[in-house]
Amino acid sequence: MAALLAALPADRVLGDDDVVRSYVHDEAEWAPFGTPLAVVRPRSTAEVQAVVRACLEHRTPVVPRGAGTGLSGGANAVDGCVVLSTEHMRDVVAIDPVERYAVVQPGVVNDDLRAACAAQGLWYPPDPASSPWSTLGGNVATNAGGVCCVKYGVTRDYVLELEVVNGLGEVVRLGRRTAKGVVGYDMVGLMVGSEGTLGVVTEVTVRLRPAREPERTVVGYFDSVVDAGRAVEAVGAAGVTPSALELVDRHCLAAVDEWKNMGLSLEAAVVLLGRTDAPGPAGDAEAEAMLRCFEAGGATWAAASTDPAEAEALFSARRLAYPALERLGPLLTEDVCVPKAAVPEMLARIEAAAVRNDVLIANIAHAGDGNLHPLLITPPGDVEARARAQVAFGEIMRDAVALGGTVTGEHGVGLLKRDGLAHELSAEVVAMQRAVKAALDPHGILNPGKVFPDPAP
Amino acid sequence: MAALLAALPADRVLGDDDVVRSYVHDEAEWAPFGTPLAVVRPRSTAEVQAVVRACLEHRTPVVPRGAGTGLSGGANAVDGCVVLSTEHMRDVVAIDPVERYAVVQPGVVNDDLRAACAAQGLWYPPDPASSPWSTLGGNVATNAGGVCCVKYGVTRDYVLELEVVNGLGEVVRLGRRTAKGVVGYDMVGLMVGSEGTLGVVTEVTVRLRPAREPERTVVGYFDSVVDAGRAVEAVGAAGVTPSALELVDRHCLAAVDEWKNMGLSLEAAVVLLGRTDAPGPAGDAEAEAMLRCFEAGGATWAAASTDPAEAEALFSARRLAYPALERLGPLLTEDVCVPKAAVPEMLARIEAAAVRNDVLIANIAHAGDGNLHPLLITPPGDVEARARAQVAFGEIMRDAVALGGTVTGEHGVGLLKRDGLAHELSAEVVAMQRAVKAALDPHGILNPGKVFPDPAP
Repeated sequence: MAALLAALPADRVLGDDDVVRSYVHDEAEWAPFGTPLAVVRPRSTAEVQAVVRACLEHRTPVVPRGAGTGLSGGANAVDGCVVLSTEHMRDVVAIDPVERYAVVQPGVVNDDLRAACAAQGLWYPPDPASSPWSTLGGNVATNAGGVCCVKYGVTRDYVLELEVVNGLGEVVRLGRRTAKGVVGYDMVGLMVGSEGTLGVVTEVTVRLRPAREPERTVVGYFDSVVDAGRAVEAVGAAGVTPSALELVDRHCLAAVDEWKNMGLSLEAAVVLLGRTDAPGPAGDAEAEAMLRCFEAGGATWAAASTDPAEAEALFSARRLAYPALERLGPLLTEDVCVPKAAVPEMLARIEAAAVRNDVLIANIAHAGDGNLHPLLITPPGDVEARARAQVAFGEIMRDAVALGGTVTGEHGVGLLKRDGLAHELSAEVVAMQRAVKAALDPHGILNPGKVFPDPAP
Repeated sequence: MAALLAALPADRVLGDDDVVRSYVHDEAEWAPFGTPLAVVRPRSTAEVQAVVRACLEHRTPVVPRGAGTGLSGGANAVDGCVVLSTEHMRDVVAIDPVERYAVVQPGVVNDDLRAACAAQGLWYPPDPASSPWSTLGGNVATNAGGVCCVKYGVTRDYVLELEVVNGLGEVVRLGRRTAKGVVGYDMVGLMVGSEGTLGVVTEVTVRLRPAREPERTVVGYFDSVVDAGRAVEAVGAAGVTPSALELVDRHCLAAVDEWKNMGLSLEAAVVLLGRTDAPGPAGDAEAEAMLRCFEAGGATWAAASTDPAEAEALFSARRLAYPALERLGPLLTEDVCVPKAAVPEMLARIEAAAVRNDVLIANIAHAGDGNLHPLLITPPGDVEARARAQVAFGEIMRDAVALGGTVTGEHGVGLLKRDGLAHELSAEVVAMQRAVKAALDPHGILNPGKVFPDPAP
């Protein structure tokens, strides 16, 4: 602690216990967390480096943290650690419209970057539901996805270059700003999604796209999640690439409506929201094709939306589903991702797990890329319900792997999915990953205990 | 050798010295190569594993190899090694039109995969000029690019899953087949472009796209490479994303015409070939915008091609430029990649290096993504010219780095660009990459001596 205070201006170290408490965990309410030695909010790369070096010297764990909107416990404090929040490093350093990249500090909020790009006719695609709050540093740490990723890919597809304080306390630049480059290993790809276990990101250069055409929306109502899943499968089989294909069930719509009083229609058990941004007649054709797939899947009603306000309200409802449901009680959030053709079966298995374990499971999903977010909701304080939910959580992860899927599509492993990782990956692959971790963080100070299960005793 | 013969069916081990000689180096004529202990052509993952295990036991280097079309010496034999060619593993294992992926063995030729996909209305984008000969295994090893990558990205953007025999002789599956996934580190991204130094790829699963619209071509003639470079910069600044933007100079056109007698027009010093595959009116608008950029750059003549045969001939000439020039004498191939805005300056510096060193330098380029391939041509047997060319080669690499670029956009480091890597990357980053190499290949048997400069003595 003395070393930290010596290394940093005093106002970078949080003193107030109440404030410190708000930094000890992310939004994964069910994941364990410890008591940090300190919480620091550096304002420059040099200050981040000073923190990491001080921690190296004292072999103190460093837990990097963005806005704390993570859903797997990746940013949770471990006992005696220094929580390093990059939230005060929030400059948009540069936007280059010819090369089409933006350079930002890690604390820049996703929506703020998006707005700065839009002002120059550019677009940064990855759009997690947390985009009004989550930061680029956190998005990089978890390889965040979002709504438009079904067509435009995830964070990893956009990160060109990173400045990182590595496990030896060195400031390094990884990657490149050119369109292509193969000079040595893809260290940027390795850092993205590594959840702070290989380095602390201090600057991010992301590729941008030109601003796109306005989207058209197609809405479908379904009597069951499985019918909606069939419509999703039909969209994939038809060769359509929507710019969004989201699923929201009645539980989510009701919770949002109760909270925000948006006047959402609650006639349907499940709503599918499809979008296309193909230009001109190609967009008309895609919207029409999606509509036919919704009908083929068994929609009770489906239409291309002619009312942009209505379409926007439905997408807002999708984004607000998580905080709306959180108001009902502690949430356990799944993030399984399965092949498109397995979406109906996976949704059926999620329903079966809900019934079998007597747990309320609401569903939101980036259905178009098979990334499902069943949300397990338990009454506050109900310990038995919580235990049942945890059983269902494990069953759903195993079902996803059995169907050729993965336990985490975009939230990361953190603490909640460490068992899932061990189930999904072979022991040899886990050993390779641990070898990489040991090579780049030889003193084991970077976010220890996250991602990998504890070694066998 | 006895261990190899025991591990494999006899016909997998090459006996004839003349045949062995054709496996000792790739197409980087100027890179050194050694004498292998043996050349083997396994036919299954189990056979690859048997080779790696036998080599592990005897600490014998393994040099993996695809079709040998590499341009950096990455597949060159080192003394006493086993050259492991995967060319006989050439099954297209599966193509899934709903999930949009293909599973192939590493010896499948790029164009053969492309044809198999086209038969199902699908498309595998990465299209190196070597596509009629190069294999997916080699494409993965070098993270191959190509003509359409300016819009559609490189090999790494398409590889979902890999089966690999790792440095411990284990068969592992890395990555996933789902659209998204963040369960642990991106080991697939790490393998792609690692030039056989981290494992031997035995199966590749690549993402596919739906077959696209026919492309429209815009052709521009220019009096100088620098004018053409200005047109390229203008295309970037106009916010157009062409599906190809290639540069071919008079030396290349003349060499192809002399070889193939294609009746190519030789009025221009440089030809730019732009393409768009945007659908319908959007494509018309993009072609028109590109035409205006060509004119703004100083084209002496520019037009949207109305003759598909003429457009195809020009693109064929681009693809044939390398073998056509090779007929004139040994080629030293550059692969620098610079920011779009630096393309005119980089082309000017390449011209200056040619004059300064009295070396003939022909230019082909994936100009739209700033990836330039100056080809240094020397008369056969002219040792002094060769020495001058090597000086120019080094100068061009340093110029690219000085302009914010990289020494290799898509060919890989191999042997020819090891000094370039050391110049481009900081010592700390090279140390991180070496640490990863040591972690995953602890016995140092996988393609030793490639990519990284020899350690300081």
